[in-house]
Amino acid sequence: MLKVYGFAVSNYFNMVKHVLLYKGIEFEEVLTFPGMDPAYNHKSPMGKVPCIETEHGCLAETSVILNYIDAAYPAKPLLPADEWQRAKVSELMKMAELYFELPARRLFPEVLAGKKVSDDIKAEVRETITKGCQALAQLAKPSPYMFGDAMTMADVVLRYCMLTCKLATGAVYQWDVLAEVPGLRAWDEMMASADISKQLDSAMQEGMGAFLEAVKAKA
Amino acid sequence: MLKVYGFAVSNYFNMVKHVLLYKGIEFEEVLTFPGMDPAYNHKSPMGKVPCIETEHGCLAETSVILNYIDAAYPAKPLLPADEWQRAKVSELMKMAELYFELPARRLFPEVLAGKKVSDDIKAEVRETITKGCQALAQLAKPSPYMFGDAMTMADVVLRYCMLTCKLATGAVYQWDVLAEVPGLRAWDEMMASADISKQLDSAMQEGMGAFLEAVKAKA
Repeated sequence: MLKVYGFAVSNYFNMVKHVLLYKGIEFEEVLTFPGMDPAYNHKSPMGKVPCIETEHGCLAETSVILNYIDAAYPAKPLLPADEWQRAKVSELMKMAELYFELPARRLFPEVLAGKKVSDDIKAEVRETITKGCQALAQLAKPSPYMFGDAMTMADVVLRYCMLTCKLATGAVYQWDVLAEVPGLRAWDEMMASADISKQLDSAMQEGMGAFLEAVKAKA
Repeated sequence: MLKVYGFAVSNYFNMVKHVLLYKGIEFEEVLTFPGMDPAYNHKSPMGKVPCIETEHGCLAETSVILNYIDAAYPAKPLLPADEWQRAKVSELMKMAELYFELPARRLFPEVLAGKKVSDDIKAEVRETITKGCQALAQLAKPSPYMFGDAMTMADVVLRYCMLTCKLATGAVYQWDVLAEVPGLRAWDEMMASADISKQLDSAMQEGMGAFLEAVKAKA
């Protein structure tokens, strides 16, 4: 059976889990924290989560895992068959990661561990996310999903990227990023109301206390 | 005809151009610097290069463009048809970007514009690239290409990521990254000896003077 390595507070782990649950694929969850166990690096070469273990071997990097899952389990597809539409969905997935998740994550030392982030970094992150909002508004008009009637991988990825982004920008700038893009708040609420989202959000809340303790102990 | 926006010094632009030349696809090159012209953002929402313009519209983000090109122009494929092999190639493409190119790029303010990068950032970048080398050694043993007899997209992406990485780590740490991974130097030399690489490297050299002047003027 497919194994998925990770922990409930990881938004990247949750992207993979959301897709597996949505597609009804059976999997075994293996509780794993990044960088804790050198033996785990044989599965995920950078020690990161998530990682999946299949009959062929192990695979790391969330976007790669998501593409593989959609190809290997084609029922309930989350990527369009048409190559151009597929590219546009992939473009939004990539932008969600590069211009919302990764910049917001640079604020985490301050948000999660009380370790001051420099004003230079704060300004740089805010500029990137501001541009990201403009790009998002240009690329997709939610109705109700990012690319129309059907949910795609871009919706799943953006949802869990926005969790990080909302948390960090709210805490550091008191900035409501959802207000920046027309339709984004309604889309975010719709995504949050799905049963799978509720299940994963609740697991995330449950795991958060222990996770924050671990982060503070490390910092 | 396919249009490609960018400039000869951009290693991401050169990944796309390398693939187009390799596949023998006709294209028109439109000289574009990132973030210079607001009208360009209608094509590439973050103002970045490269971006391609097709009969369907515009597409940004290099990895997305590369996947689209291989799907839309299937002759001389650079991604395996088998989904698992394809995922492993994609994993290496992603790791080349995340753990070689993007960290090395954080050293560019010092390398290109003489603007001191903090020791904290230097230590962080060095740690990421060191782990990246270990991951690369684990994932691929060049023979002669990263995944055996045939060149894949991973070879092209890694080559242009390593250009950035070699330049920045050589200048800042006097560190020879190619020595860290068995077979990497021979692979790098083989990739550099291809006619397309020579053509793009020479265009990069020609454009470098004007590019560095522009960077310094901006800094």
